[in-house]
Amino acid sequence: MEPLPPVPEMHPSRWGDPAQAAPLPESARGLVELVFGLAERPAATEVVVPPSRLAPAVLAGLRELLGTEHVLTDDLTRRLRTRGKSTPDLLRQRAGDLSDAPDVVVRPDGHEQVAAVLALAVEHHLAVVPFGGGTSVTGGLAARRDGYAGVVSLDLIRMKRLLAVDHVSMTATLEPGLRGPEAEALLAAEGLTLGHYPQSFEHATIGGFAATRSSGQSSAGYGRFDALVVGLRAATPRGELALGSAPANAAGPDLRQLLLGSEGAFGVITAVTVRVRPLPVEKVYEGWRWPSFDAGRHAMRTLAQAGLLPTVLRLSDEAETGINLARPDSIGVPTSSTTGVEGSTTETGGCLMITGYEGEPDAVAAKRAAVTAVLGGLGGTPQGEEPGRAWAHGRFHAPYLRDSLLDVGVLVETLETATFWSEVPRLYADVKAALETSLGSPTLVLCHVSHVYETGCSLYFTVAAKQAEDPVAQWRAAKAAASDAIVAAGATITHHHAVGTDHRPWLAAEIGELGVSVLRAVKADLDPTGILNPGVLIP
Amino acid sequence: MEPLPPVPEMHPSRWGDPAQAAPLPESARGLVELVFGLAERPAATEVVVPPSRLAPAVLAGLRELLGTEHVLTDDLTRRLRTRGKSTPDLLRQRAGDLSDAPDVVVRPDGHEQVAAVLALAVEHHLAVVPFGGGTSVTGGLAARRDGYAGVVSLDLIRMKRLLAVDHVSMTATLEPGLRGPEAEALLAAEGLTLGHYPQSFEHATIGGFAATRSSGQSSAGYGRFDALVVGLRAATPRGELALGSAPANAAGPDLRQLLLGSEGAFGVITAVTVRVRPLPVEKVYEGWRWPSFDAGRHAMRTLAQAGLLPTVLRLSDEAETGINLARPDSIGVPTSSTTGVEGSTTETGGCLMITGYEGEPDAVAAKRAAVTAVLGGLGGTPQGEEPGRAWAHGRFHAPYLRDSLLDVGVLVETLETATFWSEVPRLYADVKAALETSLGSPTLVLCHVSHVYETGCSLYFTVAAKQAEDPVAQWRAAKAAASDAIVAAGATITHHHAVGTDHRPWLAAEIGELGVSVLRAVKADLDPTGILNPGVLIP
Repeated sequence: MEPLPPVPEMHPSRWGDPAQAAPLPESARGLVELVFGLAERPAATEVVVPPSRLAPAVLAGLRELLGTEHVLTDDLTRRLRTRGKSTPDLLRQRAGDLSDAPDVVVRPDGHEQVAAVLALAVEHHLAVVPFGGGTSVTGGLAARRDGYAGVVSLDLIRMKRLLAVDHVSMTATLEPGLRGPEAEALLAAEGLTLGHYPQSFEHATIGGFAATRSSGQSSAGYGRFDALVVGLRAATPRGELALGSAPANAAGPDLRQLLLGSEGAFGVITAVTVRVRPLPVEKVYEGWRWPSFDAGRHAMRTLAQAGLLPTVLRLSDEAETGINLARPDSIGVPTSSTTGVEGSTTETGGCLMITGYEGEPDAVAAKRAAVTAVLGGLGGTPQGEEPGRAWAHGRFHAPYLRDSLLDVGVLVETLETATFWSEVPRLYADVKAALETSLGSPTLVLCHVSHVYETGCSLYFTVAAKQAEDPVAQWRAAKAAASDAIVAAGATITHHHAVGTDHRPWLAAEIGELGVSVLRAVKADLDPTGILNPGVLIP
Repeated sequence: MEPLPPVPEMHPSRWGDPAQAAPLPESARGLVELVFGLAERPAATEVVVPPSRLAPAVLAGLRELLGTEHVLTDDLTRRLRTRGKSTPDLLRQRAGDLSDAPDVVVRPDGHEQVAAVLALAVEHHLAVVPFGGGTSVTGGLAARRDGYAGVVSLDLIRMKRLLAVDHVSMTATLEPGLRGPEAEALLAAEGLTLGHYPQSFEHATIGGFAATRSSGQSSAGYGRFDALVVGLRAATPRGELALGSAPANAAGPDLRQLLLGSEGAFGVITAVTVRVRPLPVEKVYEGWRWPSFDAGRHAMRTLAQAGLLPTVLRLSDEAETGINLARPDSIGVPTSSTTGVEGSTTETGGCLMITGYEGEPDAVAAKRAAVTAVLGGLGGTPQGEEPGRAWAHGRFHAPYLRDSLLDVGVLVETLETATFWSEVPRLYADVKAALETSLGSPTLVLCHVSHVYETGCSLYFTVAAKQAEDPVAQWRAAKAAASDAIVAAGATITHHHAVGTDHRPWLAAEIGELGVSVLRAVKADLDPTGILNPGVLIP
């Protein structure tokens, strides 16, 4: 078998591969200056990682369990395991704030070693933060320290095996530390694909996908991650949970759905059995233009309710279409929003939809023909494959642009939600208004629909504003305003980014105080001393 | 609006509409005599319902809450709310054993009254058994009495409203007491269908479908019931749970999936929001014949993994095909199994598959053409629409035949399971062998696949044997042997009949002791004094 493609460690204070870090493209610089002004914001040159405060006996215990080389306390390793990649996380890293650094990073090689680490953590009352790809954008890696004898980053990076493949049932059992590309490479060698491509794909892990109920850019065709999971194994302080007797069953509540989305607070997921598909022979992506966001969403809903979803289906609103986020090298400025700049882009007007088809050529052709007939009949204008290729080329690149904008004093962040179709117009308007009001002018709010269901869809917002003196506080206020608007609209506080610490204050509004009580009861049962990712998920 | 079609109370000791109770058809009588012998087993003529033992103050309290006319203690009402419709339930009713009769039947008119009844039940420590259609076949209505001040049957029969319809999102909110035909009639008036047709459809309720994770005969097209649910409301002793902010979300574990399958042990479901479809314009069912059960299952798997499922897809094994269970008036005896009778049927050889298509004529035609091409290519022989019509005509009638066979001394019962495709041959062989070994000769074991997924399928067994002196004990032993075989094969103890009390001894083998512990923790949180359906679901 081919060796796994190497996935580089992400930059400590930027998204992704350090080799891809780049300044804002020249083509965009002028327009960004016009709208927001340019104010270079260099990262702190001196970064002090707080000393590891783990008792020597604890450290010795960990080394005995895992071997000295898999128990790391050096500054760089601990810095690379500090928090995730939300904009506030990046801003704090840039400012040299490493106050959430773990005291130790441990690298178990399988379920048994994970279980052993948990036992030792219970014994010494250490907080344990499971670490997959480190791509959390909701504060899912910032455990509470108070009252704990130390914080352990439980790095799953050595757990990268394809444990089993069943070509008849079309399932595969994967270890949690596999990055997206690594999992796909292992499956491709078997002629299979998982088909899960969130924007974080290049760095995020199988375990993280499960723990956060991730949803990928091809969710219309392959399904969100939790819909792909048929079995799970987890290590908890009270022992093992192994679930998944059948594709579906009626043997009581579906406990798989309790581990999916548990964000490391109930247990450490040590294996995930997923549904897989044959590696697609053909992939084709194309563009459609719609006169309005409403018209495009109506078309999406029509496809979903007709059972005619392509593999990829996304729709940018007028603002996002105008700025053409998929092509940072040809970035424009839209005509809407509160920027005060009008008509300065070449591709104004309407909304861009991307449709993608993956599979056997015959199936691709048949689905494409059927979808094309529906979209054409509803007033969409085909744009050919060029916009599709551009989207596919740039599909994982937007987070790099965020760093380039942060460099020049522009605050950029994203947030997402979902609701039922009839509630989408209100949700869209309210969240947009909340963000614009909180951040003031100039603020750019872009939105797209990337996940579509028969009964509703997600809304994914990208926000850009001029950085204030304290950009973390500035964003916290805007995020709070947006979150308040989301829960007031009865929508979900997060469609696919999980709760972490950032969404926790709004969870009770969504699932009720009694729902929170249930989560606490489950937590108390599986993790009686509360060592697992304390402060994350559960209010 | 048209008034709801009246759904008659079921016969107290038989399945379904008392008007449809009938002796074994003459055409079948000869063959049944040949295989099993005939031994008339009249039901007990004298049935004594144990007296209601509720304290007068409690009864007064209930009457104050609900009104006197909705608090019933008469013998007939309590008899009609005693247990469900498993064969052991029927046999015990036939024998005059009403020891599980509730002390009182109460009929709240909505969520608030349900909550009030639960509060009173907590105060007086009454066991509360939510009652929908009374169609449980796993002992889900036989609560433990010990230690309780009485047993209350919480009859949801007055909660039959269509609370909301959203034609844009294609969702409907239904009250739990709606029987299948009542829900469909209300939705049909809106041009909609739920499309959930389990064999119990004519009597089972929306609340029961949710509480037991029901799956219908059209699950291939419409999805199992838990997949149709987007929102739920429940009353618990600790207050209200209201869930369902979006079609899907990542706001922690999906607590909807904790209420689905909770069998009245966590709360009383008072409203269910489901995905609905347009009322199908066309319905067509047809037959296919396969040389073997293996060949037919291979075809089902091919369709499922190609994303080409018809609305209905079922496959009988050689034995079930031979006996032609869908047509009680032309019942035959198969050539296999341990009956010792060979070649006595006119339709021997191979396995019958039913495919059904529902929807817009164009969509029906397109799907039918695509499925036909696949099935023909795999070696299936089309049988035309006649077998499909016969199946559709008899689809809810098999339980009536069970009563007719019980009348003449034949023990008949069903059980079901599910697993992943690669494990199906072993599961099929092991369960069949376990039943045949336990029941001895003559025993007839029939099987069909009625629920198909990309990664696996269900197996539904129908068993017939000569009744022993104590048929309840005889069945318990056979059921235990089958259940042991199921868990030994790693399959689920139940794909769509729920746990009840009958499957409870095997639940820990399926979800582990720690999974059971989690269920207990949730139960303790929502129902701290344990009044809700005690003894059901949770070991």
